[in-house]
Amino acid sequence: MKNKVIIFEKRPEGMPDLNCFRQEDIMVQEPADGEILLKTHYISVDPYLRGRMREGKSYAAAFNPGEPMRSGIIAEVIETNNSEYRQGEYITGMLNWAEYQISNGEGLVKVDPDVAPLSAYLGILGMPGLTAYLGLMEIGRPQDGETLVVSGAAGAVGIVTGQIGKILGCKVVGIAGSDEKTEMLKKDFGFDDAVNYKTTSNIRKAIAEKCPSGVDVYFDNVGGEISDGVMMNINKFARIIICGAISQYNETRMPTGPRLQSVLLVNSALMKGFLVNDYAGKFPHATGQLTHWLLEGQLKNKETIIEGFENIPKAFIGLFTGTNKGKMVVKV
Amino acid sequence: MKNKVIIFEKRPEGMPDLNCFRQEDIMVQEPADGEILLKTHYISVDPYLRGRMREGKSYAAAFNPGEPMRSGIIAEVIETNNSEYRQGEYITGMLNWAEYQISNGEGLVKVDPDVAPLSAYLGILGMPGLTAYLGLMEIGRPQDGETLVVSGAAGAVGIVTGQIGKILGCKVVGIAGSDEKTEMLKKDFGFDDAVNYKTTSNIRKAIAEKCPSGVDVYFDNVGGEISDGVMMNINKFARIIICGAISQYNETRMPTGPRLQSVLLVNSALMKGFLVNDYAGKFPHATGQLTHWLLEGQLKNKETIIEGFENIPKAFIGLFTGTNKGKMVVKV
Repeated sequence: MKNKVIIFEKRPEGMPDLNCFRQEDIMVQEPADGEILLKTHYISVDPYLRGRMREGKSYAAAFNPGEPMRSGIIAEVIETNNSEYRQGEYITGMLNWAEYQISNGEGLVKVDPDVAPLSAYLGILGMPGLTAYLGLMEIGRPQDGETLVVSGAAGAVGIVTGQIGKILGCKVVGIAGSDEKTEMLKKDFGFDDAVNYKTTSNIRKAIAEKCPSGVDVYFDNVGGEISDGVMMNINKFARIIICGAISQYNETRMPTGPRLQSVLLVNSALMKGFLVNDYAGKFPHATGQLTHWLLEGQLKNKETIIEGFENIPKAFIGLFTGTNKGKMVVKV
Repeated sequence: MKNKVIIFEKRPEGMPDLNCFRQEDIMVQEPADGEILLKTHYISVDPYLRGRMREGKSYAAAFNPGEPMRSGIIAEVIETNNSEYRQGEYITGMLNWAEYQISNGEGLVKVDPDVAPLSAYLGILGMPGLTAYLGLMEIGRPQDGETLVVSGAAGAVGIVTGQIGKILGCKVVGIAGSDEKTEMLKKDFGFDDAVNYKTTSNIRKAIAEKCPSGVDVYFDNVGGEISDGVMMNINKFARIIICGAISQYNETRMPTGPRLQSVLLVNSALMKGFLVNDYAGKFPHATGQLTHWLLEGQLKNKETIIEGFENIPKAFIGLFTGTNKGKMVVKV
């Protein structure tokens, strides 16, 4: 069967562009004994993939040029020689950017389209939702009445983080990159306030104004100067979750900025790197809680869905200019 | 009674000098009902006092020019109108830099010269010892076989931290400012290895060589470029205790350096500011453990004792050029 696949063509220097990818037609074989044939429906594009395009140590093993790109995918079992999977079932897993592919079923998780829309399993019920929930609960541990600041607040993780902060009784202030996004956060997602960093010259002052009681928990998805401004407003015993640093991912040199050790010291504050996969043992509980809140209407799902297999690279690149609101997903 | 007192004359800009202090003769009154008259024997000088000489937020309330300087002191009760204190008893507490002073006894702790030399209650059995023990146990949580790096390793806190690391089964590497100090750490205090940062051009490489299995716990007393070099060698799940930043205390502007968030992120590492007073509830247990180790000979005390009341400011300033080995104390 003819089948489109997107190959990692070359490592980007700085901002990735379309030349880092190439599309190929590669035949798919029939599934052998124990295998299944999968048809892709939704493909997740995520900032962390940029790290894997770099050589050397990052979150996870580096992609190698010449190999298919991979990310979280929702696919349908269309042929099966594996007794654990039936035709018509849907699964999610780390799979190739391909229209069709063979799998032996390892590492796949079944998803139920009757509980939530399929794409939600890549977002609010998938890795970004788990990241928001577990980062906040395991490191941030926000208490009722505390102030939570979320950067990248209109992104896949941030928009869930802020909503969970509200469920937990926090004052929640988001930082995002357009007035449309800040309005959306306040109007549609219950954020108490939001800052458009693109039109704010002094983030430190803006956060001081929006957070008169200071910042107790900072969920950081972006790093860089935005974070510098937040850090100058932290309270005694603040917790800072380093979940991402999208503003830095395309830097070609080690970025510099204010040394934050003395800020942490004076405030007895904690800063910790958060990788969701370190908490895999807590995924079932976390997924259960997120599903419950979603079905109860306490959490709202937000997605930017791009249509067309060939648009995966473009959707990925768009993450770094902020073209998405909520989770960016490609529908095949 | 005539009595010398050292007054905080003016706030330093950058490195403090002798002009920041002045000595005055101030009469001491007789102790009123409920009060005691104290004669100073030992005065502690500590890097953190530099923070209190600055205006605004630091570890503790700022000193105000015109007031006596204060720090940890060992004194003898020479007259008493307070039934809780008898003449001839020794106490420690935050007291004025004065030969004699009156106290109502609040906040003082009795110390026993038969258990350890009096000066030890300002060092290994005092705030620096508690800082080493609690910083390591509460944030560092070193495991048997892990690698612990200590900066400011020949200072009051560092020299205890490294020894505790050895007791706990760690490989311990110290960073200090002279060959004499690094030799002392290895020969007399059981450190596995030590780096002289003043003669090492590339700290990152030096630590990589001394710590082939990477750094699991970094107890940071100094900050700045030394710490940058250590941070580039941390392991997955590393813990970084920000206990001090003596290299930065005399900076007049916010110092800049490499942004460490991505290093924390990729390694799921924790960095936390440590102020010993946050853990006051654990002082009795910690003091008991330190006393036990000291009496058993598992911990060795190290002090630099300067003689003469008038030399307190000089001793304090010497902390920033590293004139001390172990705890710097002034004997009156």
